[in-house]
Amino acid sequence: MLAVEIIEKKRDGKKLTREEIAFFVDGVVRGAIPDYQAAAWCMAVYFRGLDEEETVQLTEAMVATGKTIDLSSLARPTVDKHSTGGVGDKTTLVVAPILAAMGAAVAKMSGRGLGHTGGTLDKLESIPGLRTDLTPTEFVAQVDRIGLAVAGQTAEMVPADGILYALRDVTGTVPSIPLIAASIMAKKIAAGAANLVLDVKYGSGALLPDPAQGRRLAVLMRRIGTAHGRRVSTFLTGMEEPLGQAVGNALEVKEALAALRGQGPPDLLTLALTLAAEGAFLAGLVKTREEGRRRAERAVASGTALEKFRRMIEAQGGEGAVVDRPDLLPRAKATTLVLAPRAGYLVRMDAAAIGRIAMRLGAGREKKGDPIDHGAGIVLLAKLGARLDPGMPLAELHTNRLAEIEQAMKEFQAALVLAEEPLPKPSLFLPVEEEEA
Amino acid sequence: MLAVEIIEKKRDGKKLTREEIAFFVDGVVRGAIPDYQAAAWCMAVYFRGLDEEETVQLTEAMVATGKTIDLSSLARPTVDKHSTGGVGDKTTLVVAPILAAMGAAVAKMSGRGLGHTGGTLDKLESIPGLRTDLTPTEFVAQVDRIGLAVAGQTAEMVPADGILYALRDVTGTVPSIPLIAASIMAKKIAAGAANLVLDVKYGSGALLPDPAQGRRLAVLMRRIGTAHGRRVSTFLTGMEEPLGQAVGNALEVKEALAALRGQGPPDLLTLALTLAAEGAFLAGLVKTREEGRRRAERAVASGTALEKFRRMIEAQGGEGAVVDRPDLLPRAKATTLVLAPRAGYLVRMDAAAIGRIAMRLGAGREKKGDPIDHGAGIVLLAKLGARLDPGMPLAELHTNRLAEIEQAMKEFQAALVLAEEPLPKPSLFLPVEEEEA
Repeated sequence: MLAVEIIEKKRDGKKLTREEIAFFVDGVVRGAIPDYQAAAWCMAVYFRGLDEEETVQLTEAMVATGKTIDLSSLARPTVDKHSTGGVGDKTTLVVAPILAAMGAAVAKMSGRGLGHTGGTLDKLESIPGLRTDLTPTEFVAQVDRIGLAVAGQTAEMVPADGILYALRDVTGTVPSIPLIAASIMAKKIAAGAANLVLDVKYGSGALLPDPAQGRRLAVLMRRIGTAHGRRVSTFLTGMEEPLGQAVGNALEVKEALAALRGQGPPDLLTLALTLAAEGAFLAGLVKTREEGRRRAERAVASGTALEKFRRMIEAQGGEGAVVDRPDLLPRAKATTLVLAPRAGYLVRMDAAAIGRIAMRLGAGREKKGDPIDHGAGIVLLAKLGARLDPGMPLAELHTNRLAEIEQAMKEFQAALVLAEEPLPKPSLFLPVEEEEA
Repeated sequence: MLAVEIIEKKRDGKKLTREEIAFFVDGVVRGAIPDYQAAAWCMAVYFRGLDEEETVQLTEAMVATGKTIDLSSLARPTVDKHSTGGVGDKTTLVVAPILAAMGAAVAKMSGRGLGHTGGTLDKLESIPGLRTDLTPTEFVAQVDRIGLAVAGQTAEMVPADGILYALRDVTGTVPSIPLIAASIMAKKIAAGAANLVLDVKYGSGALLPDPAQGRRLAVLMRRIGTAHGRRVSTFLTGMEEPLGQAVGNALEVKEALAALRGQGPPDLLTLALTLAAEGAFLAGLVKTREEGRRRAERAVASGTALEKFRRMIEAQGGEGAVVDRPDLLPRAKATTLVLAPRAGYLVRMDAAAIGRIAMRLGAGREKKGDPIDHGAGIVLLAKLGARLDPGMPLAELHTNRLAEIEQAMKEFQAALVLAEEPLPKPSLFLPVEEEEA
């Protein structure tokens, strides 16, 4: 088998065999197939696509390149939750403790933020002392003990994804639905949970802004999961504006803590309760989704979800007291209000731009390994649909980079559209219809 | 400017600017843009194409990465001839001496063979002692002295092409018309001749079998040449069967010598005289193409073309006596006849397969740097249209690899199609119509 023939076959729109896919992925990881052939292949896939069978086989081949986590020894049913990411998406920090409080074993492997979307690990690390570099043994032991762990993926898991993702990032081949699906699902399969709740984002702050593309991704990921023997539920949820109000690491942890007390922004709380209910239903912890919803609400109201979060923080070496005293989280020196320049209804927000502004304020990284200012970010004081008068506060900018404030204010105002008449709010949930991918 | 943005722009079908193209090509040559980005870009170009302006700019950017040959000091008008290559294509060995005999300065830089098409340098090197590694100074001095030199391209000329071509070869991005056009034309522009005769091959033995694609390539190359101030004529010529009868290095030199005596196969002689006449016309050596044709025929009949070839061989250190005594050329140990298995008209030949059989017999190389057996190859004893009886000779196989003969005979027979009724012969020349590329 020759790598160039596999590239040419895909270039010409032909279907690859399981053997060809496995040969290619394995060759890339072993270094037998050089980066430039992998890059050409990714671009051919960008143009020609992979069908469902090829994508399942690609996922399988990627999983086979590394170690996998075995959660079969756990007594509780295992649940993992994944979101395709978006600006201000702190759902994991709320869903995971609720699910653990409902009796699930939540074994969640997360990533770091790059570009304008934040990573769960970065958010968690704003909690003083908290470690996310658990070994697989520590990880499984913690899930066994307290039902909850959120840690970084180790390099030994799905090395094919590390290589291909880094390559796609610099070769213009990120927005390929089968490649995205295989990348996410290989990590989910390797991480071992039997039940998967997948939250695909659409809208201006998401990787795939178009809901139709999000839908294709959701359906494809569900099929890959099912083909690998997992129970999978998928959601297509809105990212036309940032989720909740906070964008930035410590600010988002603070908001997640409020949500775990039932006091968070309604969109965040609704999404978290819905995903938790679904996870509990999938895992067989409840008989119906409605029962799941009630149990999830109770886990919040009773404080058991918050308590799970505290135990997780402490198990990972963090300062558990932040749960009661969010003021222990890092804070930026300066807080500046952005005011409405004129009257009008807030009808559109460029969520990606808001993510980039938060990055400029110090909350994100432009390239791998850049340091993050955990206290920096944005708190939105108006969301889509708000009726604004001139001078009303739109947002708080939190930063230690005082020189950036002026430009950030300008850019923030430019990221909003005000209109005379209100528009209907975009949906938080869209149906994921079963359609041919 | 970021390389990934240039890749994405082309991926999305947008037109690149001159600055973006120059930045990319220069970055690839300096190593600032890694191979994997260049490979992804080539694949994006494969799918999206480049328009004429982009292709001209790509050519220009490629030329700018290296040295160029300055032929402006020569008294005679400079002519270069290029063929896109095909099985048994020894046209250069006939055209170049005829043109030199007609008063042109023929400064021809050639390549080596790879895969099933032979390279002019390999053919010339079957002449004992002949060197093709002339320095640019030796090259220009020889053209000045005797009007004719055929040498290899130095690494300092168009290094971008060396890098991109090697990459395209292993990433499935060779058959992209704008990339082929820029690759060829960058070398032609850098080689300095003012007048270019381009011979684009179509058919089973050519890089682009479909005449429509060959036509697009021809038109695009003419436009690139014109944009660079060259006078260009293009031909679209048939490679549905090998050109002439000989396939293999010394065998082709022998056939070229016969053609220079007016005794070669009619297709080879017709093509060579037509190209030579066109080159002389372009260069202003004759007033009309008809006069060019008569002068070219006279150069053959009078022996002056053959004499030019002898002088070139001697100037490049080779044994000039081969011109009169072709038996001084290397010969393979074994000559085996392939016979017609049954009666019929020869209606189709897979020229590419015949090239691969010659390679198997030792005449070509599978990878760069492989040695070549100069005496090996095939002499066709029947061409398209021939009426065969069972047992009539189809071809002679020349090889030192006795173990390959049986398989080669089988493959040779499989490369031919015999039919009850004759088919019209494919055209040697097709019109290159000016159409929008």
